[in-house]
Order: sequence, then C-alpha cells, then structure tokens
Amino acid sequence: MDTLLKPLKELSEKFRSLDGVGKKSAVRMAFSVLNMSNEDAEAFARAILDAKTKIQLCRCCQSISESEICSICASDTRDHSVVCVVEDAKSIMALEKVKEYNGVYHVLGGVISPMKGIGPEKLKIKELLERINEENIEEIIIATNPTVEGEATAMYISRLLKPFEITVTRIANGLPVGADLEYADAVTLYRAIQGRREI
Amino acid sequence: MDTLLKPLKELSEKFRSLDGVGKKSAVRMAFSVLNMSNEDAEAFARAILDAKTKIQLCRCCQSISESEICSICASDTRDHSVVCVVEDAKSIMALEKVKEYNGVYHVLGGVISPMKGIGPEKLKIKELLERINEENIEEIIIATNPTVEGEATAMYISRLLKPFEITVTRIANGLPVGADLEYADAVTLYRAIQGRREI
Repeated sequence: MDTLLKPLKELSEKFRSLDGVGKKSAVRMAFSVLNMSNEDAEAFARAILDAKTKIQLCRCCQSISESEICSICASDTRDHSVVCVVEDAKSIMALEKVKEYNGVYHVLGGVISPMKGIGPEKLKIKELLERINEENIEEIIIATNPTVEGEATAMYISRLLKPFEITVTRIANGLPVGADLEYADAVTLYRAIQGRREI
Repeated sequence: MDTLLKPLKELSEKFRSLDGVGKKSAVRMAFSVLNMSNEDAEAFARAILDAKTKIQLCRCCQSISESEICSICASDTRDHSVVCVVEDAKSIMALEKVKEYNGVYHVLGGVISPMKGIGPEKLKIKELLERINEENIEEIIIATNPTVEGEATAMYISRLLKPFEITVTRIANGLPVGADLEYADAVTLYRAIQGRREI
C-alpha cells in the first residue's frame, strides 16, 4: 500500500474539494466512510444528491430555498420595504440568529473580485434592481462582509442605487463586543472612532 | 430560514458523523456541496458508494484491499516471516511511508477497550493465531499505538503468543525526533531513559 487504494484516494479527493478541508482531514474522512455501515454510506450518498436536487434559488431574494419562493420572502409578518443585501445564504443564517431584523433579504451570490474574475454582471445585482422597480422598497441595508471585496461591492451597489429614492445604509464597522483594544487592528480602531456615537 | 433547510441539515449531519468533523465545519461542507456542479455532486455520491463496494478486507492480513489478497500480502519481495501487528490500515500507511520495513502486516481492527465494550474477541486476534499456525512466522512486531488501550492490547497479545516459538517485539517508546526534553511528559521521559542504548 504505497499510496491510498484508488477508491479511497478518489473519495478523499472529493472531500478535499470541499471548503476548508485539508489533505489529512480528507483522508481521515474517507476512512470514516469505510467504517460506516452500507446503509449509512448509501444514506450519505443520497443526502448529497438530495441537497443538490431539492434546493433551488428563491425566485425573489436568490437565497437557497426548498420551494420557488423562500419562507422569508413568502412571510406576511416580515417588513418587505427593507431589504438587506448579503453575499450568501450563510450570512442570512447568521443574521436570522440575532432575531432582531424583520426585513427581507437579497443574496448577491458573491462579491466583486477582479482577482477571481468576478465582475458585477456575475452577481444578482440585476435582480436587485428589478426588485427595486417592482416592489415598494424604502431601505436597502448593504451587509456584505467588511473585507476589501465586500466594501468595494457595497460601494458599487450604493452608487448604482443613487438615482432611486431609497435610503441606502451600510452595517457598522467597529470593535466586536468582548474585544480588547490592545489587540484590535488599526483599521478597525479607526472605523470604531469614526463611527462613534453620543451616549 | 430559522434553521438550515432540511436537505442541507440532513447533509451536514452526515458530514458531522465523520471522524473529527465539528458542527460548523459540517455546515460549511454541506454548503460546499450546494456550490458544486450537478456532475461533481453525483461523482461525490458515487465515490462514497464505490469506496464501500470496491474495498474489502484482505483475507490474509485483514487490512483494506481492492482484491481478495492485498498487494503487500501478495508481494514476493516482502519478508513473510516478520508480521507487524497494527490497530488499523492507517497505521500501515504511516509505516509504509518510512520505506524501511519489508515484512508483512496484520490489522487488528481496533484495540481492547473495556470502556467502549471492545473485548479481544472483537479484534482479528483469532485470525493472527491462524496465520501463526499456518504460515512460517519468526517474529511478531506489536505496533499498536502507545496509548493505554494500545499498551494493554500489546500486553494481551504478547502473553497469548508466549506458548509459540516466535520472537515477539514491541516498537520503542521514547522522545520523538526534534522534541524538546523541557516539554516532554514524564511517562515518555521515563520510557526514553528505560530504553536507553549504548552509543
């Protein structure tokens, strides 16, 4: 056994292709599959295919959904005049955990990144503009991540929305709760001072 | 989207069941699958089933194999009179990387662990005794991990092999190469002193 057996090697390469999985973890996972019962392995394979076939993009907000319209877009109790623009569905999950936001969302499906060859045309910005034209939207909260690409995308969208009579806001930058000034980076501290509020 | 969509939740639970995968990693992996093309997802599912169906236990050494007899057991160039007893196939991979050992192997499929309800009868010890009776084995190297269970299993097997005219050895304990005495634990240091050799 100079190297891994072929089926084991192929399986570990599949695990390796997943986000954040290293070579050693991938091999360990492939071995875990070998230790599963046949039924469990079949259920695992089925779960992969199920996730791909049963999940689609919501026709309205472009988030993932089991139906044509996702549960948030279909909800009567949510405020459809406020739209929070996020990079991906994972951001929605994070924001929904807070249980404070009652508006709806719009998923861009990424951020503008010239390095990765992702221009604005590859994001769901056209769909956002369509929503603004068709729906009665009063505020757009841009909640892309505070990274270089996320900031650039926020800037791009905010300029694009200038002609419309809509309030466009950006989520705040600053020190995370529980942080220590000593260890905060300069840019975060600068933003925290810039964004100071009267108490 | 209070929680994960059902198919996504089911898939992340499958990932969670793998060795060493935490909850957050499992969710991230499930999202990775969503971002795959349909073909890639199908190939992934197929790789899982392939690994389970194409890989069996070698009839001789009980390691994983694509054929009835694994490549090491079937090899003419290896010394079949020396058998290295290991916990699992992963140990074989690690030992084969060294390229120093030219004997064959025997995989126990675990270690004796009363806490986990694993007695000697659940390991491939019977198969090892059969090999000793049938084959012309001169030395057994016990290479279970130097953990409490691994040591207990090594002790159990060495006692079991007493009646046979075979040399039974145990791999050495000591400081790993590149280690620092300052940070070594007491048991390892004790073993390193005990196992000292003239230079």
